[in-house]
Amino acid sequence: MTGKVIIAGLGPGADALITPEVTEALAEATDIVGYIPYVNRVPPRPGLSLHPSDNRVELDRAGHALDMALDGRTVVVVSSGDPGVFAMASAVFEAVENGNPSWQDVNIEVLPGITAMLAAAARAGAPMGHDFCAINLSDNLKPWALIEKRLRLAVEGDFAMAFYNPRSKSRPEGFARALTLLKEACDDDRPIIFARAVSTPEEEINVVPLPDATPEMADMRTVVLLGSSQTRSVTTGRGARVYTPRSVSE
Amino acid sequence: MTGKVIIAGLGPGADALITPEVTEALAEATDIVGYIPYVNRVPPRPGLSLHPSDNRVELDRAGHALDMALDGRTVVVVSSGDPGVFAMASAVFEAVENGNPSWQDVNIEVLPGITAMLAAAARAGAPMGHDFCAINLSDNLKPWALIEKRLRLAVEGDFAMAFYNPRSKSRPEGFARALTLLKEACDDDRPIIFARAVSTPEEEINVVPLPDATPEMADMRTVVLLGSSQTRSVTTGRGARVYTPRSVSE
Repeated sequence: MTGKVIIAGLGPGADALITPEVTEALAEATDIVGYIPYVNRVPPRPGLSLHPSDNRVELDRAGHALDMALDGRTVVVVSSGDPGVFAMASAVFEAVENGNPSWQDVNIEVLPGITAMLAAAARAGAPMGHDFCAINLSDNLKPWALIEKRLRLAVEGDFAMAFYNPRSKSRPEGFARALTLLKEACDDDRPIIFARAVSTPEEEINVVPLPDATPEMADMRTVVLLGSSQTRSVTTGRGARVYTPRSVSE
Repeated sequence: MTGKVIIAGLGPGADALITPEVTEALAEATDIVGYIPYVNRVPPRPGLSLHPSDNRVELDRAGHALDMALDGRTVVVVSSGDPGVFAMASAVFEAVENGNPSWQDVNIEVLPGITAMLAAAARAGAPMGHDFCAINLSDNLKPWALIEKRLRLAVEGDFAMAFYNPRSKSRPEGFARALTLLKEACDDDRPIIFARAVSTPEEEINVVPLPDATPEMADMRTVVLLGSSQTRSVTTGRGARVYTPRSVSE
């Protein structure tokens, strides 16, 4: 009998942000597949096989999960955050479309999770409280020119923005170029939020005016949120918070 | 002693999609504030006061929550989905900025939730698997011209899109105008997803090519997802799923 592949979002880091639906899927799994640090978040137990793999082998990992499902296993592919946001869900469907035709028989289910930008937004206040965009700043899988085009259009539309994968060791310059473009295009001191390792013991939230932002404020564990022209700061009993109002006047 | 206001996301509907963090906050609350159907999702218990209110009174509701916190209460303001996405978090910060100056002393915490677009995307496959925008189609709080501008820019940037509040009784025409604009601007048969009441017993997922979409496919409980030009369909053991590939070639 064919098994199934469940692509599950573990949220940004804290167990308290994992949905009960995902916890139940992990409890019923025979196999866990994913990037090493995410598989490490799943507690081992008898009868559960863990299959951690390195970064950048998403299609191989997806194929492995689909093969095990064809063998009758109940495979959970784990992603950080939400599996549908710059994560494993698209990779699995891509494998199904282009790989072994038998994979089209596998039952595939996607379980949503708390995505990094919304966990970060909650910590900062409500910067995504009006229309917003989410942009992956990695140019591993798309041309840099397309990233720049999208940044310019998002500024023109006065969207708030969330940037995933702003910076990595293999792409040291991209984020600096993006910041330069954004500073010129926005030309104001709207807040930019660097949210690192949200909901983990290493969490750091750093809010600065856009002109003061530097590339070193982001690393591989950071999601970056940029306000719209309307985003502002407000004082609360827990310190300053940043929010984007619901209204834009005529 | 000043109490606090916790703005919590209940997710799209199913209890299995409420994070343990939010469940714990509800268990510790003295008061629950929110739109009637969301307050109705919180089980009553001794010592817990429920304060349901009607739609469109978000600022009054926020002020009420802040006043109770000043009286030492532990108030949870409940939102559907994620409170930072077209929901109560911005309204509370807006009240703090413009209302009673004492409200600036209140501790405010935002707890993220599974937002409708990501729950809907998971059901449909992975349509938000590449860069995307989220746009509120209600023109109650912004000019319609700004909505049209953002739709055109989002098409030009080839973003996938999620539309919140596509249609209500008081705004019957807006969504029809948005669909007409999108059909002309996209000029292809990319999939559009109408996801109603996701994760509830009334859930309906309807995927059609954009040219076949009609305004009646959406109502107040629907979130609408539109693919980018790259979004495609793939066969799985559970039927067709829609996904947007991670890569865009040069």
